[in-house]
Amino acid sequence: MGMLSVNINRLVDRIEKLGKISLDEGKVSRLALTKADKLARDYVVSIMKEIGLEVKVDKIGNIFGILKDESNKEKEPIFIGSHIDTVIDAGIYDGCYGVLSGLEVIQTLKENNISLKRPIVCAVFTNEEGVRFQPDMLGSLVYAGGLDIDEALKIKGIDGKVLEKELKDIGYFGEENPGFMKAKAYIELHVEQGPILDKEDLEIGVVTGIQGISWQEIKIKGVANHAGTTPMNMRKDALYIASKINVFLKELACENDCVITVGSINIKPNAINVIPSEAIMTVDLRDLSNKKMEYLENEISEYLKQLSKNIDIEVKRLVRFSPVSFDQEIISLIEDNVNKRQLSYKKMTSGAGHDAQMISRICKTAMIFVPSKDGISHSPKEYTKKKDLENGANILLDTVTYLIE
Amino acid sequence: MGMLSVNINRLVDRIEKLGKISLDEGKVSRLALTKADKLARDYVVSIMKEIGLEVKVDKIGNIFGILKDESNKEKEPIFIGSHIDTVIDAGIYDGCYGVLSGLEVIQTLKENNISLKRPIVCAVFTNEEGVRFQPDMLGSLVYAGGLDIDEALKIKGIDGKVLEKELKDIGYFGEENPGFMKAKAYIELHVEQGPILDKEDLEIGVVTGIQGISWQEIKIKGVANHAGTTPMNMRKDALYIASKINVFLKELACENDCVITVGSINIKPNAINVIPSEAIMTVDLRDLSNKKMEYLENEISEYLKQLSKNIDIEVKRLVRFSPVSFDQEIISLIEDNVNKRQLSYKKMTSGAGHDAQMISRICKTAMIFVPSKDGISHSPKEYTKKKDLENGANILLDTVTYLIE
Repeated sequence: MGMLSVNINRLVDRIEKLGKISLDEGKVSRLALTKADKLARDYVVSIMKEIGLEVKVDKIGNIFGILKDESNKEKEPIFIGSHIDTVIDAGIYDGCYGVLSGLEVIQTLKENNISLKRPIVCAVFTNEEGVRFQPDMLGSLVYAGGLDIDEALKIKGIDGKVLEKELKDIGYFGEENPGFMKAKAYIELHVEQGPILDKEDLEIGVVTGIQGISWQEIKIKGVANHAGTTPMNMRKDALYIASKINVFLKELACENDCVITVGSINIKPNAINVIPSEAIMTVDLRDLSNKKMEYLENEISEYLKQLSKNIDIEVKRLVRFSPVSFDQEIISLIEDNVNKRQLSYKKMTSGAGHDAQMISRICKTAMIFVPSKDGISHSPKEYTKKKDLENGANILLDTVTYLIE
Repeated sequence: MGMLSVNINRLVDRIEKLGKISLDEGKVSRLALTKADKLARDYVVSIMKEIGLEVKVDKIGNIFGILKDESNKEKEPIFIGSHIDTVIDAGIYDGCYGVLSGLEVIQTLKENNISLKRPIVCAVFTNEEGVRFQPDMLGSLVYAGGLDIDEALKIKGIDGKVLEKELKDIGYFGEENPGFMKAKAYIELHVEQGPILDKEDLEIGVVTGIQGISWQEIKIKGVANHAGTTPMNMRKDALYIASKINVFLKELACENDCVITVGSINIKPNAINVIPSEAIMTVDLRDLSNKKMEYLENEISEYLKQLSKNIDIEVKRLVRFSPVSFDQEIISLIEDNVNKRQLSYKKMTSGAGHDAQMISRICKTAMIFVPSKDGISHSPKEYTKKKDLENGANILLDTVTYLIE
């Protein structure tokens, strides 16, 4: 057979349609298990049914669109997919591109009557972003057996709502036990969410691994006091301490060639003329070396210990995932396919966490990246060219075609 | 006549009752012109009526309880009073002590049939705290002619509500024009809200002036981006820049022996794994010297100019009041009265802004302070001993008694 290609117009049309599903007018904001997430799930399930896939949902809300037949139903399936939940005020590609490309690949195979040696499954994993419920990559983590389903269902969101109830309320508390299908391999196609491919003008990233992630929450307890009457040396200013920590973390990251981010802060009472009595900030630390991560976590901990001589500081570990290396065999296969299509590429690691990080615990895994304009992601400005979207989906198609044979 | 004294039990009882009026269960939170503020106003007006005072309200919502008779009604009145709005999660003394002591003093004079040479007026000024509407000390500012009433009525609160509508909704948009009574003098009794009297174990502060206040809002516009994939040197992190500014301001304040506070910060999108794209922070700067204030404002401006080479920074001046010196004659009178009662005291300046700062523009003004335990204010821990409350109210009584003769 000749070289198949996806229907890029159909794919782009679906990405744009999914990108319009939001409850926040004019913005893409689909926090996990909200009404907007439900509508997006319904849309994706409708495409699965249109293609003729069997749809299954597990107890953590992961959705699976399954293409199989009598001849291959006993074989371990190939998984592809990603997630469709988003951060607040997000772009339309992050996650959604992987899910809709997965469906596009399956539809292309089906339309061309390609006989499948193995079932092929497009997975939509729950709560990848972790903005509403922590940890992030929750659906794939539970599917991979990294967190017990009963524990996961009890998780409370930032709005105090319990995950199980939210899942049931949107109708995606499924019957299947997480992990119910054992995958042969998992390949995730994703926008880079970083500047490297765009800057170096490359078409494809062959992803060899993912940085580890360490999330901590730091709570600083100061004393509220009048801004005009309390001498500087008698203050316990929680926001000032939080600011010092942020400046320290930036220096630490630069010195050690890693990334550290304080992405959220909430203070009390948050009034112009009152010294802040409380600050709660988060720390997101990522690196490719687990050893370095441990060193940096220790440095942070020592610094906080020093500060806590003068002010109360509580630290809570939210998330800790070690760095991951992907499967060499699949990496080579992707590289071969990229060469066959004569696309420019580089082997690279991912700075962002992805469901592939979790699924790599249970099967051979790798990822394919396409460029993000200016490296911008988690923003309405997130953008990937149509041609790049097409290239990525075709490489996924080629790779799956080989793997299913 | 012998030396009169206030009824301290009645006063403390009223302070505690007023302190219970809040819509936030278990907390004192009466932002200006909210439902809670309305209930507190109703309570104070009910006391004014119980005492037999004439009640007038002006167009900015200032309330006046007036004691006068046929013989003195043409004379310029003595003003006493303060405010009853609070910050979020406040104490029960700030402002309320001055208003309720004012009423207690008038009631004591009336019960003792003291013949008044001048009318005496207890004023309750609108929005002193400035948490909901800016600028702070708004009611007294407008009353003193420092801000046009039409302009003031258009001010929007932090909740986007317009002041005029809010005033009307709670029923305190009065008929009188601000400034309708010309005062002979204004004396404001207040808790210190600072640690000096408590630390030095003194009973009374004779206040000779008030620090100037400069409030600015700084808006930093960065770029939202993925926390894991954006190298540190390619970031435009709005919160990091805000943190740097906060650290700079602390150093500036310490070097120059003044007070500077960042009391509020709000960031977008405020998500754990997204580089903050926007931070809005406030700067509260106070000092006794206008020259020094100008120097410090200039230093801040220069620093922001440097930072803005790499990131967009907008600065908005919210409030600027120059330092104030009180009336020497009233200061001496208060000092004499303190000596007559054999109380310990010191002459001091106020770090906090007060309505007296505004009213000093239109008549002879001074203030009396009583100790705040540990200097704590704008906090539920704000506390002043009963004996100190009594001393302060008696000094106010003595001073008014002399002034009205």
